[in-house]
Amino acid sequence: MISCPMPVSGYDRVVLGHGSGGRLSAELIQRVFLPALGNDILGALEDQATLPAIAGRIAVTTDAYVVRPIFFPGGDIGSLAVHGTVNDLAVGGAVPLHLTAAFILEEGLLLTDLERIVQSMRHACQACNIHVVAADTKVVERGKGDQIYITTTGVGLVPDGRVLSVHAAQPGDRIILSGTLGDHGIAVLSCREGLEFETKLASDSAPIIKLVEVLLAAAPRTRCMRDPTRGGLSSALHEIAAASGIGVELDESAIPIRDEVRGACEMLGLDPLYVANEGKLVAIVPEDEAQHTLAALRAHPQGQDAAIVGRVLAAPRGLVTLRSRIGGTRIVPLLAGEQLPRIC
Amino acid sequence: MISCPMPVSGYDRVVLGHGSGGRLSAELIQRVFLPALGNDILGALEDQATLPAIAGRIAVTTDAYVVRPIFFPGGDIGSLAVHGTVNDLAVGGAVPLHLTAAFILEEGLLLTDLERIVQSMRHACQACNIHVVAADTKVVERGKGDQIYITTTGVGLVPDGRVLSVHAAQPGDRIILSGTLGDHGIAVLSCREGLEFETKLASDSAPIIKLVEVLLAAAPRTRCMRDPTRGGLSSALHEIAAASGIGVELDESAIPIRDEVRGACEMLGLDPLYVANEGKLVAIVPEDEAQHTLAALRAHPQGQDAAIVGRVLAAPRGLVTLRSRIGGTRIVPLLAGEQLPRIC
Repeated sequence: MISCPMPVSGYDRVVLGHGSGGRLSAELIQRVFLPALGNDILGALEDQATLPAIAGRIAVTTDAYVVRPIFFPGGDIGSLAVHGTVNDLAVGGAVPLHLTAAFILEEGLLLTDLERIVQSMRHACQACNIHVVAADTKVVERGKGDQIYITTTGVGLVPDGRVLSVHAAQPGDRIILSGTLGDHGIAVLSCREGLEFETKLASDSAPIIKLVEVLLAAAPRTRCMRDPTRGGLSSALHEIAAASGIGVELDESAIPIRDEVRGACEMLGLDPLYVANEGKLVAIVPEDEAQHTLAALRAHPQGQDAAIVGRVLAAPRGLVTLRSRIGGTRIVPLLAGEQLPRIC
Repeated sequence: MISCPMPVSGYDRVVLGHGSGGRLSAELIQRVFLPALGNDILGALEDQATLPAIAGRIAVTTDAYVVRPIFFPGGDIGSLAVHGTVNDLAVGGAVPLHLTAAFILEEGLLLTDLERIVQSMRHACQACNIHVVAADTKVVERGKGDQIYITTTGVGLVPDGRVLSVHAAQPGDRIILSGTLGDHGIAVLSCREGLEFETKLASDSAPIIKLVEVLLAAAPRTRCMRDPTRGGLSSALHEIAAASGIGVELDESAIPIRDEVRGACEMLGLDPLYVANEGKLVAIVPEDEAQHTLAALRAHPQGQDAAIVGRVLAAPRGLVTLRSRIGGTRIVPLLAGEQLPRIC
């Protein structure tokens, strides 16, 4: 990367040369990336970012974002790539510190679209009090990508004494969900080519850092947390059930779902339990901490619809079941394949 | 991610469901990723890796790898994705500690190819004494990717007192190159569709961690280092010249280039100064440390062809020039666009 000022070459779309490591790469950095994401560390343009000293346990997470379309109601691939990775740190109890971003651009991407996405990352980073400290851009030929893919990696600090583990759920624990299910997945689907339908729904894409702090303050013995993204609440609970060797029983009538999501799911033949969320938190908390934790979450603007949606059972181990409104119980299977491809 | 053992579903190619976050995702993790890359941290299958305590400055770097073809003489996209990121840490003076990997797979990728790539990452990680501590997999439809893209992010520890900066080059400094130029780029081109030509050349893709340690031990006042990858030696020196506000003069007769690379470059109309390397080191060292550092590098198996290839001048600032074999001097321009797309 180059730090000398460069003239703009007048391209309005990404060309292969923008990934060359030469003058066009430098122009892209100067014109698009640094104005939005620049900070002292990224601006140093070294091959690696050297960061202030850390004392303690760090947490690291990485995710590739391939959501289609790249702009959707309530967000875009840029904000999603920040929120998703920050949230993965947060549910591990880590305080997000730094972010890296690697871009794979398809030749022909509009530079105005790239600028919009990078600006969106900037705002998301500001809201999370985090900086992009290292970045990379590659360009692939037309038909070898899909406009833009972004991989973000987050580095966070785990406060001393904080131990959360997917292996730690115990019979009797309660399952707290911070809000409505399925908003992100249905909002993205609503604007997907060939599938457009009218809805006022927006993605719930948002950082859940503050919600996590509220929860951990109210329930210091929280066993574990997840953000129920790809695969939805079902996948998150299956992971916990399998890892902890316990059963999970959901109470259908307690699960908050917006009317628009319920309607769209019926129309599309989807189960909201499997639809992705990008600003929700599911936590396993001891029974004696559940009620006041629920009250604390509900007092937070992002937690108004929070609910205790189920409990942990000693058996059947590894299974997720749903007690329906009319009293029956059914198994919630682990989804085999893809219900909603490229939702994040 | 799921930790319970799963049957193999009998797919021989990647399908969209492998990116679902459901059962097929879990199978891919159990069958392909964990056997190759598994360790205590990755095996915990949390949404984030919590790592042992660190005390000191950490360095972070990220790169997306989109090399085509994915297998080439001397390496593949898997080993490259490890070496490239580890080397970016090493040239910053950091000791590599942890790696994350995010995979974007194209529907239809042969699972045997994926296994081969992941095994190659395993061996590269072992050679670098580093582990993959967090990973992610997404699948995109046929025609929306190109078999496999990998983004790796590296976290390293910067020893106390070690300060290297692209801004630190000073007039009189010498430029040391650790070996021959252009091996990686030409080896990849030699097997690229439509361009195959016969050569015994292999990519130089390799970790340069040990070479860096040899260099820093011999030249403790080293100003900065680079691994001359995309954009080649020219781009690396242009970055330094621009950032340090100095000129760089190369001595053509001193630059080590293999006959096969020279021949291929003549045939293809390429300049070896711009061709990518993936196991080389270029360093700016004070004049009084240059000669014994060269000797130290040459005593290392990876540095046998090391050479002092040029020097830093006070002017012209920001320019890279080449003193030719016949005595003339020409400007080495910063490449505008793409000489060799998708070389890393």
